[in-house]
Amino acid sequence: MENKLTHFDQNGNAVMVDVTGKEITLREAVAAGSIRVSDEIMRMILEGSSAKGDVLSVARIAGIMASKKTGELIPLCHPLMLTKSTIDFTVEEDKNLIHVSCTVRLEGKTGVEMEALTGASVALLTIYDMCKAVDKNMVIEQIHLVRKTGGKSGTYEESTHER
Amino acid sequence: MENKLTHFDQNGNAVMVDVTGKEITLREAVAAGSIRVSDEIMRMILEGSSAKGDVLSVARIAGIMASKKTGELIPLCHPLMLTKSTIDFTVEEDKNLIHVSCTVRLEGKTGVEMEALTGASVALLTIYDMCKAVDKNMVIEQIHLVRKTGGKSGTYEESTHER
Amino acid sequence: MENKLTHFDQNGNAVMVDVTGKEITLREAVAAGSIRVSDEIMRMILEGSSAKGDVLSVARIAGIMASKKTGELIPLCHPLMLTKSTIDFTVEEDKNLIHVSCTVRLEGKTGVEMEALTGASVALLTIYDMCKAVDKNMVIEQIHLVRKTGGKSGTYEESTHER
Amino acid sequence: MENKLTHFDQNGNAVMVDVTGKEITLREAVAAGSIRVSDEIMRMILEGSSAKGDVLSVARIAGIMASKKTGELIPLCHPLMLTKSTIDFTVEEDKNLIHVSCTVRLEGKTGVEMEALTGASVALLTIYDMCKAVDKNMVIEQIHLVRKTGGKSGTYEESTHER
Amino acid sequence: MENKLTHFDQNGNAVMVDVTGKEITLREAVAAGSIRVSDEIMRMILEGSSAKGDVLSVARIAGIMASKKTGELIPLCHPLMLTKSTIDFTVEEDKNLIHVSCTVRLEGKTGVEMEALTGASVALLTIYDMCKAVDKNMVIEQIHLVRKTGGKSGTYEESTHER
Amino acid sequence: MENKLTHFDQNGNAVMVDVTGKEITLREAVAAGSIRVSDEIMRMILEGSSAKGDVLSVARIAGIMASKKTGELIPLCHPLMLTKSTIDFTVEEDKNLIHVSCTVRLEGKTGVEMEALTGASVALLTIYDMCKAVDKNMVIEQIHLVRKTGGKSGTYEESTHER
Repeated sequence: MENKLTHFDQNGNAVMVDVTGKEITLREAVAAGSIRVSDEIMRMILEGSSAKGDVLSVARIAGIMASKKTGELIPLCHPLMLTKSTIDFTVEEDKNLIHVSCTVRLEGKTGVEMEALTGASVALLTIYDMCKAVDKNMVIEQIHLVRKTGGKSGTYEESTHER
Repeated sequence: MENKLTHFDQNGNAVMVDVTGKEITLREAVAAGSIRVSDEIMRMILEGSSAKGDVLSVARIAGIMASKKTGELIPLCHPLMLTKSTIDFTVEEDKNLIHVSCTVRLEGKTGVEMEALTGASVALLTIYDMCKAVDKNMVIEQIHLVRKTGGKSGTYEESTHER
Repeated sequence: MENKLTHFDQNGNAVMVDVTGKEITLREAVAAGSIRVSDEIMRMILEGSSAKGDVLSVARIAGIMASKKTGELIPLCHPLMLTKSTIDFTVEEDKNLIHVSCTVRLEGKTGVEMEALTGASVALLTIYDMCKAVDKNMVIEQIHLVRKTGGKSGTYEESTHER
Repeated sequence: MENKLTHFDQNGNAVMVDVTGKEITLREAVAAGSIRVSDEIMRMILEGSSAKGDVLSVARIAGIMASKKTGELIPLCHPLMLTKSTIDFTVEEDKNLIHVSCTVRLEGKTGVEMEALTGASVALLTIYDMCKAVDKNMVIEQIHLVRKTGGKSGTYEESTHER
Repeated sequence: MENKLTHFDQNGNAVMVDVTGKEITLREAVAAGSIRVSDEIMRMILEGSSAKGDVLSVARIAGIMASKKTGELIPLCHPLMLTKSTIDFTVEEDKNLIHVSCTVRLEGKTGVEMEALTGASVALLTIYDMCKAVDKNMVIEQIHLVRKTGGKSGTYEESTHER
Repeated sequence: MENKLTHFDQNGNAVMVDVTGKEITLREAVAAGSIRVSDEIMRMILEGSSAKGDVLSVARIAGIMASKKTGELIPLCHPLMLTKSTIDFTVEEDKNLIHVSCTVRLEGKTGVEMEALTGASVALLTIYDMCKAVDKNMVIEQIHLVRKTGGKSGTYEESTHER
């Protein structure tokens, strides 16, 4: 089988892939994920987001800051200078789900999928942290790439894949 | 409603909770999660784990290192000196699932749930990173706390909760 | 002159002072500082703090996170595991001043003055960052130690000193 | 009131502003600040700077290193690759004041005001740390932007503002 | 004597050199070094590298990650966005030597020698860490620059120098 | 062969070893290493160390700061709260050698050998960085453990081993 795992060289050794010669293009990635919480936590979060004690505001900051740290966390990721990072939440109250999406962007030689996925993951972990005194039975679910544009491999859209 | 979100004070301001006076006890936490991959990626990972080019070895290191960085990533987490951190993988080949669990331990004043959850999350993100050149349609699933022991709130076992 | 600058050895070389043999006691420090802003920024901050777009909430998180990073920023500081870190703001609207105070605590062998001062400083810098698109003519003022307790040198109270 | 706090979106949520489309220009910023010290500390610092045991040399290194870490400390700052960072001190012996200025520079899409302010702040905090065994009654004062050039908003000069 | 230590200004103060105006060129650096180990450790490493328990795989990841952190470790280094980083090992079994080389690359305004040297150093330190339970009498040797290309000072080749 | 590489479990997977149950004892480690430089660099360093432009002062700060970061750099090292870290230099002018030693100390459950070795290594790398504009043909040599005390394995003294 041909080596398609680009993070290994022909001898099977891990490498930070050489992207020096790649073209600089506009890159954007959107990642999403969810956390399933109890009724009580859902009520507390909804109250907070319209007033003080806002869990989601803290999680938003954590997610943005984590997206900037991706190159430190993921061993073979290239360090990147993001020029945009945003975190958005939507709440599906009846399903006890809080959804997060993270959008990152830059002009560079390599994609920003991992930055978006890391931002979404840490935002969800922060929600867990802030609510765990109430109930530890939360579950983080369905962290995935929604869309990425730019680069040689072109556009990826979640909707063109079954999940 | 009484304030049960301990990361906020009575005015709704975020705080790093005062644990100075808490008792030092042995604390352990186990967190788990999974990543759903394509047939092709599953085959590559299984080949690698028995030879060179081992995706899971890199992800294991990333998860252990991330568990040590939890206090930097999660805004209101106390910095902690872990005395154990391990990452284990099991593969459910027929379901295209790779499962990770992260176990952390210390003697301290506060629990290590977030360290275990962060270690598991970053291990899964690293698998995503190393396989994304083959297929970006992976999904990280079911990150949750399996068990924690120690501290005033006692033992938590996932099995005593419905999910 | 006797060497009272404890961060240098007898040859004038910088050292991280040996505190290994010091007693573990409860240590607390409170530091404070202010930022002087324009009328327009003051109005925006006051609006935000009662609704969405809250500058002070972001600055609070930044200050808490920075207090945890003090040992990385100040070259000869001992790394410390804070067990409490809080940031509080008060606004003197007529003087166009926002005051911050940072309180940190732990049981340890060395004091936490630098952690409190660093937390206050970064909270103020974050206010500057978030308001600088409106007006760059802000001034950060009067960062100082308010109080510290614990350790061999005992209690320090700002009020017992002229400033 | 129109939203002029660019770090919030139209819903009041914090964002790392999108600067992807901005022009790359030469950017420079100079920030300054001071620390007020006792006679005894002033004498020690002056002795050290002409010999061994030099407080200001350590503070200079700390300030330069901190300017590189700005994107980690200030939540919504873009990570930036500085191409110059310097710290300079001047001493006003009769006023017991040590003045610091930090100059940073790069060619980029966004300004470097925060990097200069952070470098100056951490240099001052380091002076505090190194002298606090002698006297804790020091005060950090007047941290402000002196000048910035480059970018769409053009040049800012402190002298054109009253303070 | 003329000032050729470019990291100091004309007053002898340390600076992060201004490279803003330098040309962007392709830069590459290769650094190497060795660790001398006991017979027993050599045997264990050789066994591991052909199976599980692979010391060199962990050291490779550590070296790559450290090369990305160079700007945080070396005070006056410019932060750089590496576009390639690889670590390679060769074993001289009869001399009980493990050799590491680290190759880094980017298009930028300043060279990447320190990144290559830091990557090699941390890879060697990681081998020490993983084998020190067996024998602490290892020695890290001969860390040096093998080659660098790009930039105004042109190509440097170790072979053109005596050592 | 019995598994003596404690950083791997029985399946050959890397782990951060469990030291939770180990006794807290006073631990100290001293590591040393050298850098071989040209006549010209030796002369510049000697001039600087008695005046301004002091290469060794910057390297000392870098080494102390790096010893605090060891747990971030070496993947399976436990994070540790050092209570002492010092860097000392001696110069063998006739051999063109600068020798560094790093001494670290704490009361803890695990040794500080890696912290001492990392501090020495980064001090040497910093000397390289600051002199490389004069001559890149420097070599870092003989980084090794001089002594460690404390813990179950007792005292290690370099002098009891051949090298």
